[in-house]
Amino acid sequence: MGIVLGPNQYGKAENRLVRVRRDTPRHEISDLNVSTSLRGDFAAAHTSGDQTNVLPTDTQKNTVFAYAKSSGVDQIEDFALALGRHFVDDIEPVEGARVEIEEFGWDRIEVAGVPHDHSFLRNGREVRTTAVTIEGTGERQQTWVVSGLQELVVLKSSGSEFAGFLADEFTTLAETHDRVMATSLTVRWRYGRSGVEWGTTYDAVRATLLERFATVHSLALQQTLYEMGEAVLQRQPAVAEVRLSAPNLHHFEVDLSPFGLDNPGEVFHADDRPYGLIQASVQREGATDLGPAWDTNAGFC
Amino acid sequence: MGIVLGPNQYGKAENRLVRVRRDTPRHEISDLNVSTSLRGDFAAAHTSGDQTNVLPTDTQKNTVFAYAKSSGVDQIEDFALALGRHFVDDIEPVEGARVEIEEFGWDRIEVAGVPHDHSFLRNGREVRTTAVTIEGTGERQQTWVVSGLQELVVLKSSGSEFAGFLADEFTTLAETHDRVMATSLTVRWRYGRSGVEWGTTYDAVRATLLERFATVHSLALQQTLYEMGEAVLQRQPAVAEVRLSAPNLHHFEVDLSPFGLDNPGEVFHADDRPYGLIQASVQREGATDLGPAWDTNAGFC
Amino acid sequence: MGIVLGPNQYGKAENRLVRVRRDTPRHEISDLNVSTSLRGDFAAAHTSGDQTNVLPTDTQKNTVFAYAKSSGVDQIEDFALALGRHFVDDIEPVEGARVEIEEFGWDRIEVAGVPHDHSFLRNGREVRTTAVTIEGTGERQQTWVVSGLQELVVLKSSGSEFAGFLADEFTTLAETHDRVMATSLTVRWRYGRSGVEWGTTYDAVRATLLERFATVHSLALQQTLYEMGEAVLQRQPAVAEVRLSAPNLHHFEVDLSPFGLDNPGEVFHADDRPYGLIQASVQREGATDLGPAWDTNAGFC
Amino acid sequence: MGIVLGPNQYGKAENRLVRVRRDTPRHEISDLNVSTSLRGDFAAAHTSGDQTNVLPTDTQKNTVFAYAKSSGVDQIEDFALALGRHFVDDIEPVEGARVEIEEFGWDRIEVAGVPHDHSFLRNGREVRTTAVTIEGTGERQQTWVVSGLQELVVLKSSGSEFAGFLADEFTTLAETHDRVMATSLTVRWRYGRSGVEWGTTYDAVRATLLERFATVHSLALQQTLYEMGEAVLQRQPAVAEVRLSAPNLHHFEVDLSPFGLDNPGEVFHADDRPYGLIQASVQREGATDLGPAWDTNAGFC
Repeated sequence: MGIVLGPNQYGKAENRLVRVRRDTPRHEISDLNVSTSLRGDFAAAHTSGDQTNVLPTDTQKNTVFAYAKSSGVDQIEDFALALGRHFVDDIEPVEGARVEIEEFGWDRIEVAGVPHDHSFLRNGREVRTTAVTIEGTGERQQTWVVSGLQELVVLKSSGSEFAGFLADEFTTLAETHDRVMATSLTVRWRYGRSGVEWGTTYDAVRATLLERFATVHSLALQQTLYEMGEAVLQRQPAVAEVRLSAPNLHHFEVDLSPFGLDNPGEVFHADDRPYGLIQASVQREGATDLGPAWDTNAGFC
Repeated sequence: MGIVLGPNQYGKAENRLVRVRRDTPRHEISDLNVSTSLRGDFAAAHTSGDQTNVLPTDTQKNTVFAYAKSSGVDQIEDFALALGRHFVDDIEPVEGARVEIEEFGWDRIEVAGVPHDHSFLRNGREVRTTAVTIEGTGERQQTWVVSGLQELVVLKSSGSEFAGFLADEFTTLAETHDRVMATSLTVRWRYGRSGVEWGTTYDAVRATLLERFATVHSLALQQTLYEMGEAVLQRQPAVAEVRLSAPNLHHFEVDLSPFGLDNPGEVFHADDRPYGLIQASVQREGATDLGPAWDTNAGFC
Repeated sequence: MGIVLGPNQYGKAENRLVRVRRDTPRHEISDLNVSTSLRGDFAAAHTSGDQTNVLPTDTQKNTVFAYAKSSGVDQIEDFALALGRHFVDDIEPVEGARVEIEEFGWDRIEVAGVPHDHSFLRNGREVRTTAVTIEGTGERQQTWVVSGLQELVVLKSSGSEFAGFLADEFTTLAETHDRVMATSLTVRWRYGRSGVEWGTTYDAVRATLLERFATVHSLALQQTLYEMGEAVLQRQPAVAEVRLSAPNLHHFEVDLSPFGLDNPGEVFHADDRPYGLIQASVQREGATDLGPAWDTNAGFC
Repeated sequence: MGIVLGPNQYGKAENRLVRVRRDTPRHEISDLNVSTSLRGDFAAAHTSGDQTNVLPTDTQKNTVFAYAKSSGVDQIEDFALALGRHFVDDIEPVEGARVEIEEFGWDRIEVAGVPHDHSFLRNGREVRTTAVTIEGTGERQQTWVVSGLQELVVLKSSGSEFAGFLADEFTTLAETHDRVMATSLTVRWRYGRSGVEWGTTYDAVRATLLERFATVHSLALQQTLYEMGEAVLQRQPAVAEVRLSAPNLHHFEVDLSPFGLDNPGEVFHADDRPYGLIQASVQREGATDLGPAWDTNAGFC
């Protein structure tokens, strides 16, 4: 039986691009981490080392920086689409491209209450992300846009229970009707159509996620995640599916009774590992075929 | 149009288990990072917060530690299989399980040339991994075993070229016929059958990967990876597919000419980012359906 | 010549304490990383393994959590002082203590513009720190309080020059009169007296640092740091010394000329390593003896 | 009262240098992380932005790479000395220099039992380090050499007790006469004289540290560290002082009794945080003044 090349892709990962828009004295900055991957007829590069069809990853890097100038960087989804279409449309052997971008946020430094024109403070909040996948050319071209956020760290000091669960011979956990619940959310949502106001939608999805996390009385992290995803779908017609990956960052009530102290939900040890890991998708019924939208570089193997 | 629960799983990630075997004065240790994930009929937990079917992640953690005692830890594949089968076979609502394990290696400390009985040195080499997926019960049960290694960092100071590649208007890279090539390999291989000597095979695959990296004259990282995967398949009949993910860790020759010095491949700057990222699968022709073997927790979204 | 024990200390590092104040429905949370170190007559523990004088690090951990309940956690400086004094005053063999605390910030989640009572969002901004050192008991007791912040990441897209520097045969850098300047600041300030409003002062110092970074026209990172420290001392009579450690996070203008594009300060590559590292102290003339205030755990060896 | 510049230094941190020696087909490689810091009359750069005396950090980087070619890289102590002397002796305003180097180890890949000429495997063991400090010129020049290692991770599965310790009202820890003891060692030793065979001494110190860790029956981590340092001083006349920083990486015996299983030192949970932190110096009686040997960049503030 023969041996053949299976799925493969290659690109330049983690191009750290900072784009300054300085048309006026009031500068704007975008701080991005851009990764490109190309798919296509690259079998010869693998099986015989023939690079005829291979656009070097160095060239992909150059393209990222050149496009940052020529096409500009405003919404990361648009920048990823421009890059991805260029690779698929303009480079003959390329049949598919995936562009993953992380965006780091900056605020203006306020001086005496006035935001400064060209001095910025990294806001350290969650990272905004996108992953654009493009396959095929011309009329057969298909495009998937997944937007998201990661490292959205949230905590409820009340309003969270965990009870009524299945028990077996290895179960020692006590039921609780008031616990600390905390997680560092990775959320990605797949758009079902184009023509989306990316930035406005991002802000709205983020606000919805936070609002549901805050106000849903939680019976389990699963239920909280589902309600977050469901609310996004209810409010955002352009979104076809929401995926959430949520570590349950355990906060253990410290037993202070040996020291003659009670501890009614006041003193906690925040543990590192292990952590619960809850992963769920919420989607519209009959959502169209996912294709390769969720095939992340990190998930290749 | 309705909103429904899509793919989902939950478990306890990164249980840091150290197992000491001390039946004789010559102790043996296993140092593992174990993550479990369960799949099944957990819709109620998401949609209404009903935990009736949910075996808590805390119980999964207890199970990992209890099984480390009762079934022992020798080969990580066997330990993962035992855990996964327990969850699927013994816990009614569980229809599928995935167990991912990382193993960190330790050597005995040598004292006057003699390996010590109970004192060990973390060898800091690559991490051995496994990911076992089990679906269904009884006769319909299917099992996938993927073994691997990660953080295998290798470098060639010669025997590597990169030339003859496709050029476009963004290409500035010069061809080279002698460069440093370095990568930190993640390799995983899917077994096509059971009854494998896991440890022996691991050692053999690792030796094959290193041998091919060392001896293949490289025309591209793609070609090197393919030859590594191909050789594994040629020598290991139990292996059905090999996946490799390889960052190209760039080493740039420093231009010393401003200082009146030449630099014929002697002084390099090892750069962090960006890096090339080459990902490829090498498989047997007609390899059976992959199923969920490659659906890593990290790749969920 | 004999061999003797030199400087030594021991303690429990990185106690991850979360304290919830829930006297009213409007909860408050403090999220801390607390490290304790004790100094004193512990020679016997080292030279003969005699633990008679050794308060276990496990006990130190318990003390941190018990004090979080009994003395409360409001300002980290006060909490560190309470812990440090307890160890030195109450534990006979302890002659000195150092307590280092990191505090992570949380904001309330806003729901329809209203901050929620018990749901929080990690704000991801810089980390507030303190390091309290106490030596001796009774009238001879001395106390040093150093407060600070770390990971304050700031960037100026204009208003920064670097020119007129010393050149030797290894100098290739071009002068520039408009560059991006960015750094991730670690700043610590030593208080010269007690009776300080810790929180108010922290906010004021932080605002001063940001204001000076934003508004000083920079001729060098050294000058910017000095002006930042000087302004703190001018405005905060309680502060005796300011130390700043600032990596110069290089942003290189990408040469786009091969692609027919100019790049007047618009497209940058943010590099990881190497980075400049500027470290400076600004202090009041005749500032009193520093003692062990700056002897960090991380700087021991 | 005036405000003045206090201690300060600046340099280029983390130059990632790989040096290949290829005089014969059997290549040798050195993989280093080099940080330089200069001290001297740099007040004007801080107080007025005047760079006349400032050798740019970019030039320091160039010097590192140029010296890697011209003076070569064999023992990291010699390379650090060459760099430090150059800065102090050749650059007029520089009065002192500190060069810190980390060295990462590589082994040759073995092919059919034969070490390959130019293919290497990162061995992942501990990192070898040096920190050289030079002050003054000509006859008044003083030099301090500190060598060391970090991330030497060791574990004993027996031969370790902890009992007889001081108890107070916060003590809950039980005494133990057989526990797992593990640590990730940072050790640095200061040489008291020059003319040392750096590499040979490094290997001997490392072997001594491991041997004592393995064979000393431990009553406390403090005692183990002291015996390790003492043995180094006894066997290495060139070493004046040894400093050790050792996190006590806790391994907790898991309570399996709820599952009807005993656990006589077999199943452990390796916890991340908090950890004990033991720091100690062992030195020759009357060891000469330490000067700035231990003033690490990381310990500045």
